[in-house]
Amino acid sequence: MSRIYLNDQDMPKSWYNIAADLPFALDPYINPATMKPCAPSDMEAIFPPALIEQEMSSEREIAIPEPVRELLATWRPSPLIRAHALEKALGTPAKIYYKYEGTSPAGSHKVNTAIPQVYYNKLAGIKKLTTETGAGQWGSSVSYAAKQFGLGCTVYMVKTSFTQKPFRRSFMRLFGANVIASPSDTTAAGREELRKNPDTPGTLGCAISEAVEVAMQNKDTNYALGSVLNHVLLHQTVIGLEAKKQMELIGEYPDIVIACAGGGSNFGGLAFPFLRDKINGREVRAIAVEPSNCPTLTKGTYAFDYGDTAKLTPIMKMYTLGKDFTPPAVHAGGLRYHGMAPLVSAVVNHGLAEAESVHQQEIFQYGVTFAHTEGIVPAPESCHAIAAACKKALECKESGEAKTILFNLSGHGFFDFAAYDSFVDGKVYDPEYAEAAAAASIAQLPKVEL
Amino acid sequence: MSRIYLNDQDMPKSWYNIAADLPFALDPYINPATMKPCAPSDMEAIFPPALIEQEMSSEREIAIPEPVRELLATWRPSPLIRAHALEKALGTPAKIYYKYEGTSPAGSHKVNTAIPQVYYNKLAGIKKLTTETGAGQWGSSVSYAAKQFGLGCTVYMVKTSFTQKPFRRSFMRLFGANVIASPSDTTAAGREELRKNPDTPGTLGCAISEAVEVAMQNKDTNYALGSVLNHVLLHQTVIGLEAKKQMELIGEYPDIVIACAGGGSNFGGLAFPFLRDKINGREVRAIAVEPSNCPTLTKGTYAFDYGDTAKLTPIMKMYTLGKDFTPPAVHAGGLRYHGMAPLVSAVVNHGLAEAESVHQQEIFQYGVTFAHTEGIVPAPESCHAIAAACKKALECKESGEAKTILFNLSGHGFFDFAAYDSFVDGKVYDPEYAEAAAAASIAQLPKVEL
Repeated sequence: MSRIYLNDQDMPKSWYNIAADLPFALDPYINPATMKPCAPSDMEAIFPPALIEQEMSSEREIAIPEPVRELLATWRPSPLIRAHALEKALGTPAKIYYKYEGTSPAGSHKVNTAIPQVYYNKLAGIKKLTTETGAGQWGSSVSYAAKQFGLGCTVYMVKTSFTQKPFRRSFMRLFGANVIASPSDTTAAGREELRKNPDTPGTLGCAISEAVEVAMQNKDTNYALGSVLNHVLLHQTVIGLEAKKQMELIGEYPDIVIACAGGGSNFGGLAFPFLRDKINGREVRAIAVEPSNCPTLTKGTYAFDYGDTAKLTPIMKMYTLGKDFTPPAVHAGGLRYHGMAPLVSAVVNHGLAEAESVHQQEIFQYGVTFAHTEGIVPAPESCHAIAAACKKALECKESGEAKTILFNLSGHGFFDFAAYDSFVDGKVYDPEYAEAAAAASIAQLPKVEL
Repeated sequence: MSRIYLNDQDMPKSWYNIAADLPFALDPYINPATMKPCAPSDMEAIFPPALIEQEMSSEREIAIPEPVRELLATWRPSPLIRAHALEKALGTPAKIYYKYEGTSPAGSHKVNTAIPQVYYNKLAGIKKLTTETGAGQWGSSVSYAAKQFGLGCTVYMVKTSFTQKPFRRSFMRLFGANVIASPSDTTAAGREELRKNPDTPGTLGCAISEAVEVAMQNKDTNYALGSVLNHVLLHQTVIGLEAKKQMELIGEYPDIVIACAGGGSNFGGLAFPFLRDKINGREVRAIAVEPSNCPTLTKGTYAFDYGDTAKLTPIMKMYTLGKDFTPPAVHAGGLRYHGMAPLVSAVVNHGLAEAESVHQQEIFQYGVTFAHTEGIVPAPESCHAIAAACKKALECKESGEAKTILFNLSGHGFFDFAAYDSFVDGKVYDPEYAEAAAAASIAQLPKVEL
């Protein structure tokens, strides 16, 4: 059996809050105006009460409201798939499973949190949401969710993605959203950025500033963030909770759990339910995978930093490359954030989870191998997880170990063909990387025949 | 339970050949060179023996080879989904189910036949395949299947789609295919068409001529057709066979079965297993839905005609608008064929199935309503089936009948945002249609809020 399905009624009834189980204290958020720890009221200008409560909660289980479960059931539970064909192509004794989040309305895991976020805002009487989007997956998700509850939606889309992914914009428009390329002249933060860097490809940090600014200035408008914050990671735990149940059904448990990490929500969503077991003594590795040209966890500093360029968000203890870090216009638009979720940063810093970085050329080589074998064109973000999973599987081939690897295929790549075109046209080729790859064990890379 | 899944082992082991059960004789194909009935040997220049045998077979069940089943299991069995949210939006007592073929590697039902076609060609020692593509779904499917068996692949893509759907081309390239806009100067048929109509948006008929010409001139090259022919419809019956099993599981049987029809394979694939029951006395309606501006079944003539513009294909008895019919550059590129599968034509002509046409504006209105409620952006082709299903459901609302409606959601629309942009921008608006709609029962159309 290649695909393990669950029924609607097997969908989790509660989210899992790892904060309840961490064997160490989390640093508080700092209010950028007072430089003192944030009180819940500090966030009221942009978030509804229920989300602020979740952000600060230490309850282990937080019930998923029925209207949210009903909407999640539009596509959830998502399938768990055994990658038989990929295993065969790699010639590995490892068993590779992936949880596939690309069947959601917007094509990635992001909708898992968009729906509860819009729901709680609706409950609080909010009429409009602003948000930012990198790859377009988050903006699409909020647009979809806002449409479900009848809220308005404005999306600040990082300029490089706006250009590379015109159809992501079309998607958002189809669901009624207003999409603006960031930096824009519609906000003070955007105008300031344009003055300083007229030719900037845009950053998530700046797009966040623009969206937060609009939310702060309008009473009926709130802001929605697609990753980083505790409540976002909380909502994503449906991924790992379902995956655990699906693996149980077939008598499996992963040795290694892998997900890509931009802001950290897709990694947290898959890994946290397994880290709960690890905290309780079970052996399991969790690996967050990031691009080598935005190496937040692997080369960043663990320190207090701002979440955005304009210093509007709380200051958080996290791995960071500095709020003004502008990554090159790499293709995985969703992994270009300068910081990392405080919860993910903390579990990595305390040794509960690991981090690895992979090269853009490598992620496409493995990603295309995955498409050719498993029949799903993956989002470039997800290709990072694929690359790391394949490399672990190839290590198993060397060592002869039949490890069980589980990774999160966070989304499909049907909106990412501009990036795939670059790869097919040889433009992702990097001589420095290719030389290193030829000299080292990465020479095991499967040759992609096009 | 919204989604009804089957296990890998529940996938059909045989295709269903409706030719075995038809209560009337089918007209033979005519060889365009001799004007006499085709012998199997007449097709050997472009098709492998196994497919020619299937084309002419009157066996009821034809076994699916194991390597084909194994590859189909990459995504099959496909889900059957109850459209709860759509029903609620329409306020209908009808139960609406859809079989979702968009989870396939190329995003539509077309891969169901691409895999066996490539398999049988590989068995026959063929090294390369040529084909045509309208919407790009078929070309993507052959590219994917050819990659699985290591065959080369050249796709003649109707020029209007080549322009409207650049990422379909990217998809095919990612799977190793050579994609050429048709008409092209690489064939005599293409050059002739360009001479006559330099500004033509292209037609499927001409693209077929180009692909067939190349296959006829090269011994190691065969041609693959994505619809129309008996063996193609045969391969698609996995859709209806699975759907029957899925409905049985939940104790349901459809009153009405609906699919869009361009060449007829997606309609035949879903409907034929149900028409078998109808031939045996069970009550069930089957409706083929086509665009009102390419009204083959509803306004065409039932006659012998060529399958392509250059008169290279056999002459077939079918509903046709004439081989030189060039439909306007409507968005549903996959439904622009001048003819219709002889098997579908015959069952419609003999009253076993019905045909309806729907307007482009209408298909987008219902298609967007579907996306907003069911969370899947449908291919414009599939929107034709959605529109017809919704209209039947609205009739049930009028009459108070709780009919069970099953339609085929043949593919997703992630490559079709240029078309959706046109709709969102109001460019699909047709005053003549709007006036008629306002005056008639189609005024029930849900208002789409963007």
